[in-house]
Amino acid sequence: MKKKSESKLKIIPIGGLEQIGMNITAFEYEDSIVVVDCGLAFPEDDMLGIDLVIPDITYLKENAEKVKGFVITHGHEDHIGALPYILKELNIPIYATKLTNGLIENKLKEHNLLRTTKRKTIKFGQSINLGAFRIEFIKTNHSIQDAAALAIYSPAGTVIHTGDFKVDYTPVFGDAIDLQRFAEIGKKGVLALMCDSTNAERPGFTMSERTVGKTFDNIFENHKTTRIIIATFASNVDRVQQIINSAYKYGRKVVVEGRSMVNVIGTASELGYLNIPENTLIDIDQMKNYSNEQMVLVTTGSQGESMAALSRMAANIHKKVSIQPGDTIIFSSNPIPGNEKAVSKVINELSSKGADVIFQDVHVSGHACQEEIKLIYSLVHPKYAIPVHGEYRHLKAQANLAEGLGIPKDDIFILRSGDVLEMDEDSAKITGKVHVGAIMVDGLGVGDVGNIVLRDRQHLSEDGIMVVVLTLEKRSNQLLAGPDIVSRGFVYVRESEDLMGAARVVVEDALDECLNRHVSDWGKIKTVIKDSLSDYVWKKTKRRPMILPIIMEA
Amino acid sequence: MKKKSESKLKIIPIGGLEQIGMNITAFEYEDSIVVVDCGLAFPEDDMLGIDLVIPDITYLKENAEKVKGFVITHGHEDHIGALPYILKELNIPIYATKLTNGLIENKLKEHNLLRTTKRKTIKFGQSINLGAFRIEFIKTNHSIQDAAALAIYSPAGTVIHTGDFKVDYTPVFGDAIDLQRFAEIGKKGVLALMCDSTNAERPGFTMSERTVGKTFDNIFENHKTTRIIIATFASNVDRVQQIINSAYKYGRKVVVEGRSMVNVIGTASELGYLNIPENTLIDIDQMKNYSNEQMVLVTTGSQGESMAALSRMAANIHKKVSIQPGDTIIFSSNPIPGNEKAVSKVINELSSKGADVIFQDVHVSGHACQEEIKLIYSLVHPKYAIPVHGEYRHLKAQANLAEGLGIPKDDIFILRSGDVLEMDEDSAKITGKVHVGAIMVDGLGVGDVGNIVLRDRQHLSEDGIMVVVLTLEKRSNQLLAGPDIVSRGFVYVRESEDLMGAARVVVEDALDECLNRHVSDWGKIKTVIKDSLSDYVWKKTKRRPMILPIIMEA
Repeated sequence: MKKKSESKLKIIPIGGLEQIGMNITAFEYEDSIVVVDCGLAFPEDDMLGIDLVIPDITYLKENAEKVKGFVITHGHEDHIGALPYILKELNIPIYATKLTNGLIENKLKEHNLLRTTKRKTIKFGQSINLGAFRIEFIKTNHSIQDAAALAIYSPAGTVIHTGDFKVDYTPVFGDAIDLQRFAEIGKKGVLALMCDSTNAERPGFTMSERTVGKTFDNIFENHKTTRIIIATFASNVDRVQQIINSAYKYGRKVVVEGRSMVNVIGTASELGYLNIPENTLIDIDQMKNYSNEQMVLVTTGSQGESMAALSRMAANIHKKVSIQPGDTIIFSSNPIPGNEKAVSKVINELSSKGADVIFQDVHVSGHACQEEIKLIYSLVHPKYAIPVHGEYRHLKAQANLAEGLGIPKDDIFILRSGDVLEMDEDSAKITGKVHVGAIMVDGLGVGDVGNIVLRDRQHLSEDGIMVVVLTLEKRSNQLLAGPDIVSRGFVYVRESEDLMGAARVVVEDALDECLNRHVSDWGKIKTVIKDSLSDYVWKKTKRRPMILPIIMEA
Repeated sequence: MKKKSESKLKIIPIGGLEQIGMNITAFEYEDSIVVVDCGLAFPEDDMLGIDLVIPDITYLKENAEKVKGFVITHGHEDHIGALPYILKELNIPIYATKLTNGLIENKLKEHNLLRTTKRKTIKFGQSINLGAFRIEFIKTNHSIQDAAALAIYSPAGTVIHTGDFKVDYTPVFGDAIDLQRFAEIGKKGVLALMCDSTNAERPGFTMSERTVGKTFDNIFENHKTTRIIIATFASNVDRVQQIINSAYKYGRKVVVEGRSMVNVIGTASELGYLNIPENTLIDIDQMKNYSNEQMVLVTTGSQGESMAALSRMAANIHKKVSIQPGDTIIFSSNPIPGNEKAVSKVINELSSKGADVIFQDVHVSGHACQEEIKLIYSLVHPKYAIPVHGEYRHLKAQANLAEGLGIPKDDIFILRSGDVLEMDEDSAKITGKVHVGAIMVDGLGVGDVGNIVLRDRQHLSEDGIMVVVLTLEKRSNQLLAGPDIVSRGFVYVRESEDLMGAARVVVEDALDECLNRHVSDWGKIKTVIKDSLSDYVWKKTKRRPMILPIIMEA
């Protein structure tokens, strides 16, 4: 009989935002912590001016001596993007598969962290020991190569974390997901399964990446006389491989355009994840030597990102490529929720330039649908289910699937950021909450933009600002200069001279009243000015610009 | 033989934005103009703080004596919403079917325009003479009742404008689309067809509204023990009718919640478009007298609009309804492009409160898919095709369909706002361009927010503002007060005292240099301050707040 563990295993998701990327989860057993993934999130709509969001790792820093390392499932931004920021605060080793490690290396280089960071490349099937834990990397399939599921062995039991995955029986590169290993570990007994929920609302099975290659062949066959431009995700190396394959087959040269794509393709190619026939890839400057029907461009911008290569082509501001009537342009992607309008805008622009735009059925997802999720549950047969990776609705959808597979409701846990789930073979329970948070990065500033600043930006964005300035004499409070009113983002001042003139009178009256009543507290004077002006402007315009009174002392 | 017309017919779309609602089209023949629809648009993402957008009708005002009336196809905002604004500038009569007219009446009341506006209710099959034109209203189906297609007869030929439509053989209320009449007019010869393109990318046929009623019945049958809350479009009276039908069948009371829905239901009910069994509709305050399984709530908020009733329930800020675990909540709608994230947010909130959220397959579109579009083309058999209502990609998709039906490419016109298409039986050609534009409405201001103001709002929203104030003596240019720096939306000042202190020094140095060099032009001084501070802040933070120097004179 197995000796029973004394302590429980703790699982703590510490990404500070609910359900929007920023994957980072702590596994804790006694004095050992391992951290799975370290992702960033892109700003929500109300995070005006923010570039990206990273997790607040206070909990890890407070337990720094316990933290043994980062174990990374794959190389997407929402799993590796926060590493350069977090490593500056907590320098611990990183364990990842080869391509993932290559992509991390690029990031560390950019942030000058290469020398100071310990990294190790792990092979599928290989295990590493980190304190009380042993972690095994298991081959999966995903929209980026070298994605791994993790078997996390602890004295309290085994947890399987799928990472982001799909089941692809015929992947473009490398092996299919190692279903046998999932089954083998499952057979030995698995405490908890943490499974990707992204597509848990979708019935059926995600199609093989290879089906997209066939679609490319069809499109190439039917568009032999036009230039072909294909936009896809920069990190989807297999997709690019299939474009190269079709191009080679149909005698076309391939140009890769867009910084992030050039980088990923470079790394993937160096590390042997991409097989490029000689003389197929050419530089963008060589394009002029070839006719349209000899060319394929692979480009970034499939999400309508305004600065990406395809968007610049569509807007006529790309330096080297302009869209021509008759161009065949393929979106080999689906819009990520929130990007629909931006994508549509680019499609409209391209199509109004006479291009033939193809955007339906030239993409497959990288995430498991319902039947694949059920398959993994059936192979692993966990005691507890902990749906991960998705918005609440997706986690809930997986919870429903798990329940349908016979897992009791009480053994299914939808965790919120900061929840501490303690478990062993006898029981599992949320026993506490640790401090978590989202830290906003804006330019060089990490964490110097908070809610007050965001609220101000929101306010400014809606109705602009009116600045009221005046100078008072130090002792007498006598008005020396002003009040002057300057506005930005409020109304065209030239067309609103009357309004601004009247506003000045309102401020003067408010000020007179204060001074006549010998109100000497400048804070009070500011409040009176602000309120009077705000009331007046609201009455006249039904707008509420930010009003900023500044009193100077002379 | 028909006598040949001397003049040509002009068709001029004058909505100022490309492809985003704001439907308004002028038909001009010699000294007669009729205007089809008068819609508003909702602001694009970059129109910060704007409430709505209306067309610039300069062209109509310049030809005011020619304009005979507005002919309205149906009562959706993108077809009637600009009327109250436009009527203030150009008071001409309105012709519409009964429900459409009722909804217009509500708007005119709000704007105190009821007495001064001539309106006439037109029946299907009825024609009106407006100058050189005769206009016939033809019954169609859409997601609002009483939608009409228009046959526009002119001496130069007949144009059929479908309005927004679908083919519903089994509508919930009233008759199916009058396909016979389309055929009859088509048989006599139609110059041009202007057909709804919204769903031109979608193959097949849009399902009957009645299918949703069956889905409701199924859901009611399977959720007999829970409260049911259904969100849908305020103007979809047939949808509400079907909810009422299911509620009555399953012995539930119905509460309607959300201002716009209460209004539309009120009007539709008064005018006889809604059939409510006695004692079925109750007031929200009576809800407490009934148990959960006796209640259905019909509510606004199906698009995740932050101020709508359902969103307020989800966020726990609705005054009278709070979501309870076990509530069955149905989104009887699809997210309109751009609203996906907002809808998802509400679904997450509801679902994390323990509600069972149903959002798939409880909706049908109000617009024709490809097979319906082809049907109309085949019945009408026009010489020219002018796809309308949709983004460019949708117009293009319909153009492709028309070409597939044998209409020569040169006879298909994708018009841009302001294009003047002149046509008769011999030829059709874009011959000119009239002034068009989008006028932004912000609070009470119509047109006082332009591109400069929007750019400023954008700038302010990204990095905030730094205001630099100082007082100089009138003649000597001696510094009397300041420089003081106040920022909003830039950084937490308390955490950035060093930065703000250093910024003040930068400004002081810049100012000293100006004064030492006897630069007396305040414009120049402001520029020097702005540039120095901007450079400094960029170097330190990689941000570009708006910098607003204000010099006061004392």
